[in-house]
Amino acid sequence: MSTIQQFDAIWHNVHLATMTNNGQPYGAIRDGALAVKDGLIAWCGPKAELPPCDLLATPLFDGQGQWLIPGLIDCHTHLVYAGSRANEFEMRLNGASYQDIAAAGGGIKSTVAATRAASHEELFVLGKDRLNALLSQGVTTVEIKSGYGLNLETEQKILEVAKILDENHPIQIEKTFLGAHALPAEFANDSEGYIDLVVDTMLPALHAQGLVDAVDVFCEGIGFSVAQSRRLFEKARALGLPVKAHAEQLSALGGASLVAEFGGLSADHIEYLTETDVQAMAKAGTVAVLLPGAYYFLRETKMPPIDLLRQYQVPIAVSTDLNPGTSPLCNLPLMLNMACTLFRLTPEEALQGVTINAAKALGKTDRGSLQAGHRADFGLYAISQPAELCYQFGVSQLKQLIINGKEVNVRR
Amino acid sequence: MSTIQQFDAIWHNVHLATMTNNGQPYGAIRDGALAVKDGLIAWCGPKAELPPCDLLATPLFDGQGQWLIPGLIDCHTHLVYAGSRANEFEMRLNGASYQDIAAAGGGIKSTVAATRAASHEELFVLGKDRLNALLSQGVTTVEIKSGYGLNLETEQKILEVAKILDENHPIQIEKTFLGAHALPAEFANDSEGYIDLVVDTMLPALHAQGLVDAVDVFCEGIGFSVAQSRRLFEKARALGLPVKAHAEQLSALGGASLVAEFGGLSADHIEYLTETDVQAMAKAGTVAVLLPGAYYFLRETKMPPIDLLRQYQVPIAVSTDLNPGTSPLCNLPLMLNMACTLFRLTPEEALQGVTINAAKALGKTDRGSLQAGHRADFGLYAISQPAELCYQFGVSQLKQLIINGKEVNVRR
Ligand SMILES: [Zn+2]
Ligand SMILES: [Zn+2]
Repeated sequence: MSTIQQFDAIWHNVHLATMTNNGQPYGAIRDGALAVKDGLIAWCGPKAELPPCDLLATPLFDGQGQWLIPGLIDCHTHLVYAGSRANEFEMRLNGASYQDIAAAGGGIKSTVAATRAASHEELFVLGKDRLNALLSQGVTTVEIKSGYGLNLETEQKILEVAKILDENHPIQIEKTFLGAHALPAEFANDSEGYIDLVVDTMLPALHAQGLVDAVDVFCEGIGFSVAQSRRLFEKARALGLPVKAHAEQLSALGGASLVAEFGGLSADHIEYLTETDVQAMAKAGTVAVLLPGAYYFLRETKMPPIDLLRQYQVPIAVSTDLNPGTSPLCNLPLMLNMACTLFRLTPEEALQGVTINAAKALGKTDRGSLQAGHRADFGLYAISQPAELCYQFGVSQLKQLIINGKEVNVRR
Repeated sequence: MSTIQQFDAIWHNVHLATMTNNGQPYGAIRDGALAVKDGLIAWCGPKAELPPCDLLATPLFDGQGQWLIPGLIDCHTHLVYAGSRANEFEMRLNGASYQDIAAAGGGIKSTVAATRAASHEELFVLGKDRLNALLSQGVTTVEIKSGYGLNLETEQKILEVAKILDENHPIQIEKTFLGAHALPAEFANDSEGYIDLVVDTMLPALHAQGLVDAVDVFCEGIGFSVAQSRRLFEKARALGLPVKAHAEQLSALGGASLVAEFGGLSADHIEYLTETDVQAMAKAGTVAVLLPGAYYFLRETKMPPIDLLRQYQVPIAVSTDLNPGTSPLCNLPLMLNMACTLFRLTPEEALQGVTINAAKALGKTDRGSLQAGHRADFGLYAISQPAELCYQFGVSQLKQLIINGKEVNVRR
C-alpha cells in the first residue's frame, strides 16, 4: 500500500512559474499542481505526478489555467519614515535650486526631523499603509532600513516599528540598520565622530535588542567613505551580522568590492560599478540590486552594467528603494516594468529580481521560488504568460495571495 | 426672510482644489464646503459663506481637513482592444528585431487580429477591467478611441462596446473614431483607397449610428499624410464633428497646425511640435495633450516643447494613451508623476492636465473643475497639499469618489 499524504490545501489546474533552475524559462511547469502543509510548500510539480492523497478531504483550489508565482520580495526599502517631500518636489519644478530647498528645510533633513518627531504609532500607521499597498501587489516579504533617525533613539524607534509591523502585518519584514545613511546636523563636519557613534554605540545596542538582521551603509562621496564603511562592516562581522551597501550610485568608489570582500549580501544601485567590482561580487555571491525607480525619479542616464552582470552571472535583484527623497514609488510591479523598459532586463530576469534573487539579497533560502520545503508564499495571477507581469501595468492581475499557506485579504 | 436652499449633500471641513482661475494655485479654497443638488455642484466656496440651508435635513460629509479634487479625466485612451503584446515585449528584450517580431505576427497587426476576432462581450469585459482600474484611481471621464478594427464592422464593434461601457459603468465615456490609425493588411500599399473607405463609408455610417463624438487620425510618416488627414477633417466638419490628431510624435509633419486650422480639440503627443504649430494652436484654442507613458515606454528623448506651450498659453493636458503597443500603462496618477518627472511640468500644470484642460481636450464645459453648475464628479483625498498627487505614487490617497453627485464604490 502506498503512503497517502496529508495536505492542508492543493492548487491545481495551474501553471507554475517556479523560478527554479529547471531548464524552462521562469522554471515553468505547465499543468502543474502545488500542495501546502503547515505553512510550507509540501509538493509542487506536474499535476499528473501529484502523490496519492485524499482529495475529498483536502481543500482544492481550481486555478482555472492561471499562473502561480512566488510571493514577491521587495529587498530594498526605507518605508518607515514620516513627513512628505511634496513641497520640495513642487519647489524644484517651479525652478528652486537645491540651495533654496535646503534653506527652506528640505532634503533628507526634513525627513529626519519629521521621523524624529513622530511617535511609534504614527510611524506604524504610515508604514502599514505602505505595506498594504505592496501586499495588494502580491508582495509577501519586505526589507525595511532605518536611516532617518541618525541618533540611537530614533534609529531604534524605526527598527522597533519595523518589528511591530512584522508582528502585525501578513508581510514578512527584514530589518536593516542604516545608521550610516547621512550625516546628522549634530555631526556636521565630523563624519568620523558620527561613524564612531554608529559603530561603537548604535550598532551594538540595536543588535543586543534583536533589532538588526543586516547592516547597510551609504558609501558615496556625499555619504561615507570606503574606509568608514570598512569599520562598520568589521563591527558587523564581529557581531555575526551580514552586510550590504548603497554603492556606486553616483561615482565608482569601490563600495561594492568592499561588500564582496566581506561576503556581503548585496550591493545596491551600482550604476557606476566596474568590471573589477563585478568580478568580486560574482566570486563572493553578492547580489546586484537594481533600483530603477530612483534612476527614473532622479532622471539618471548612466545605466548599471547589465551585460557585465550577465557575463559574470551575478544574481540581479530589483527593488523599489521606496523612500521620500529619491524614489517615492510604492509599487513593485512598476519596478518590473521599469527594469525592462529602462534597464532592458528581460521579463524573466526582472521577475527573478523580485523573487529568487531578491530572496538571495536578503540571505533567505526558504522563499523566492516554488519548491517543496519553501514557505507557502505565492500569488495566483490571471495572465497568459509570466511576461505579462512586466509588460502591462495598472490592471491588477493578482487573483489570490497566499502567505504562510493561508489566503490573505489584500484589500485592507 | 432669506431663502433656504435645498441640497442633496454637503461636504465640509475640506480644502477645495477647484482648478478654476481664482488667483490661488490649484484654484484652492481652504476651509471650504461643497454642496450637491441633482447630480451637479450647486455651490462651492469658503465654508463661512455657505448659503442658508437646513443642515439637519441634509446629509453632511466631514472631510476631516482632506482635499476635494475634481474627478480625473483621461482624455486619450485606446482601451477597447483584445490580445496581449507581452510576447513581443519579451522577444524584443531578448534581442529580436522589429522584422523578427513582424514575422511572428506581432505589432499592431496582432492587436487588430485579436480585436476583430473578439466578441462584444469579450471586449466589454476587457474594457471594464481597465475602466475599473482607472475608477479606483479617481478617474470619472475617459475618452476611448476606435482604431484596432480598421474595417467598418470592427470599428463599429469597438465604438458600440465603448457606448455599452458608458451605459454600464460609472465612468463617463467619450467615443472617438480613429479609423485612420494604421493601414490594414487589406489595403497594403493603398493608403488612398483606405482613406476613401474611412472618409466616404466608415465615418458617415458610424456617425449615423450616434457612435462618434469626435474624429482622430494618426498623422505621421508611418501613418497618414496631412493631405489625407485634411480630407478626413473636411468630412468631419461637414458632419459637425470635432477633430483631433496624433501629431508630431516622431517628426514635424504639420498635423497639429492642421488640427488648429479646423478649430480642433487637441493635438496629441507633439514631441516635434514647432513654434508655428504652437502659435496656431494658441489662436485656435487647441489643447496640447502630452502622453508621458508612451514617451517612457518608447524610451524617447525628444521632449515636447513645454516652454513654448507655456509662452503661448496653450492649455496642456496629460493622459495615459493606454494602448497595447506603446503605452500599456493603465494608470493616470502615474502619468501625473511622469509628467512632472520626465516633462518637468509643475504639479499644478500636471493636475490641470488631468482635470480642467483634459475636459477642454474633450470639448466639455461641464466638468474638470469644482464650480457651481458643473457635474458633481470629485474625489476626497487624504493629502496635505495637491502636489502630493504628483509626487508620490503607489499608496492610494483616494478616500471617497463621487460621480454625478453619488458616492461610487471603487472596489469592483
Ligand atoms: Zn536606498
Ligand atoms: Zn494614442
